[in-house]
Amino acid sequence: MRMAVSITAALLIIGDEILTGRTKDKNIGYIAEYLTGIGIDLREVRVVPDVEEEIVAAVNALRSRYTYLFTTGGIGPTHDDITADCMAKAFGVGIGHDPRAVAMLRERYQPHELNEARMRMARIPEGADLIDNPISKAPGFRIGNVFVMAGVPSIMQAMLDNIAPTLQTGARMIIETIDAEGLAEGNYAEGLSGIAAAHPSVSIGSYPSFSAGGFRNQIVARGKDPAAVADAAAAIRDLLGRLKGDRAPL
Amino acid sequence: MRMAVSITAALLIIGDEILTGRTKDKNIGYIAEYLTGIGIDLREVRVVPDVEEEIVAAVNALRSRYTYLFTTGGIGPTHDDITADCMAKAFGVGIGHDPRAVAMLRERYQPHELNEARMRMARIPEGADLIDNPISKAPGFRIGNVFVMAGVPSIMQAMLDNIAPTLQTGARMIIETIDAEGLAEGNYAEGLSGIAAAHPSVSIGSYPSFSAGGFRNQIVARGKDPAAVADAAAAIRDLLGRLKGDRAPL
Repeated sequence: MRMAVSITAALLIIGDEILTGRTKDKNIGYIAEYLTGIGIDLREVRVVPDVEEEIVAAVNALRSRYTYLFTTGGIGPTHDDITADCMAKAFGVGIGHDPRAVAMLRERYQPHELNEARMRMARIPEGADLIDNPISKAPGFRIGNVFVMAGVPSIMQAMLDNIAPTLQTGARMIIETIDAEGLAEGNYAEGLSGIAAAHPSVSIGSYPSFSAGGFRNQIVARGKDPAAVADAAAAIRDLLGRLKGDRAPL
Repeated sequence: MRMAVSITAALLIIGDEILTGRTKDKNIGYIAEYLTGIGIDLREVRVVPDVEEEIVAAVNALRSRYTYLFTTGGIGPTHDDITADCMAKAFGVGIGHDPRAVAMLRERYQPHELNEARMRMARIPEGADLIDNPISKAPGFRIGNVFVMAGVPSIMQAMLDNIAPTLQTGARMIIETIDAEGLAEGNYAEGLSGIAAAHPSVSIGSYPSFSAGGFRNQIVARGKDPAAVADAAAAIRDLLGRLKGDRAPL
């Protein structure tokens, strides 16, 4: 079997509002699913506050470890929007008003509206490429392997669509989801462990969920070798067919 | 002014299913709001995969930095549930079937149902205290300053209720949210920056949101000194009252 190329990523969510619970994050799940869908493995997520040293440390830890780092948040016009300055610091480069970003802001704002605060949104680290923002114009940017996006979900999503065609992608993850049809995890755990051991290239997980209606267990087989995933999924279906459940979910 | 005691926390979400987007996390927002409400400052969140070395490294990095570390996920009966073993490794202690945990499982399972896989849920690191699980019995545990909880939201929430009375808490954060009433961030950013500089004990953030109906900006003032937060909020309301908006959200 040809070794599948693995392209990896981390995601850094920047903002006090997530850590206080004031804003419920909607970007992690969206970006995770998006990257998985295009063949990039999201390996780590961090959420940090609007504190320069925390942001710089996280950026430098994550950008050196993964193919790509994506960030959300902190690129607006107010004093708590410090992401661009933190990126400049993390990369050890200068920062100033980028003429391309200023031109974008001029598309949206009248000259008298383009005050100093709004001009903050044109502060871009030296050497960065801009990421188009079709919704509110203030751009994100790419510097090195780091993509800096807005925190507002609709803007982040538009930016991600603009970024995606420029990304190197690896073999797409093949995912098979198998419903355990009323069986408890404890019924199939031992058999599943054997199947997992026999399919080292396939990552197998079991996910219980509970609702008013009772419990539901799903088994997920993931991997980049289609034949191995299909083989593992067949073995799981075979295992489930041979088992008799009891009344517990786990 | 008396220095407010600061009790800090980190949250570690363990699970491939969050990183692939298969499961959309519901625990970060819940725990963030819960901890903020009882006077504990959540300072960092990480999401890591079901990989031993990643979990151990994250646990050791976070438990040494904050008053408390909370984790969710990976304590079920299947082979991908490796959190308890990782905790034993992180703390350098042994792990085995804990008689108290076995007794809890016996409340739920008939002797013939309590197979080896289910007994995995009684594997608890040495020296840990158990966290009651009123829903499916298999306990979480506390070891040192780390609280290990289930990933299923309803179970995690019940465990957190059991943990909360045992936690040291600090001064509660006072949060004032001020609606910008149609003003754009760029209208008030400069004035807000001045208010933030004049109130160093108050953390002031501006949060735009967009919907089909337009945009809405909210300003949040947070801090532990009630008088300072009230003063900052009054200054923000005064600022907004003096400003005339334009048509842009940012």
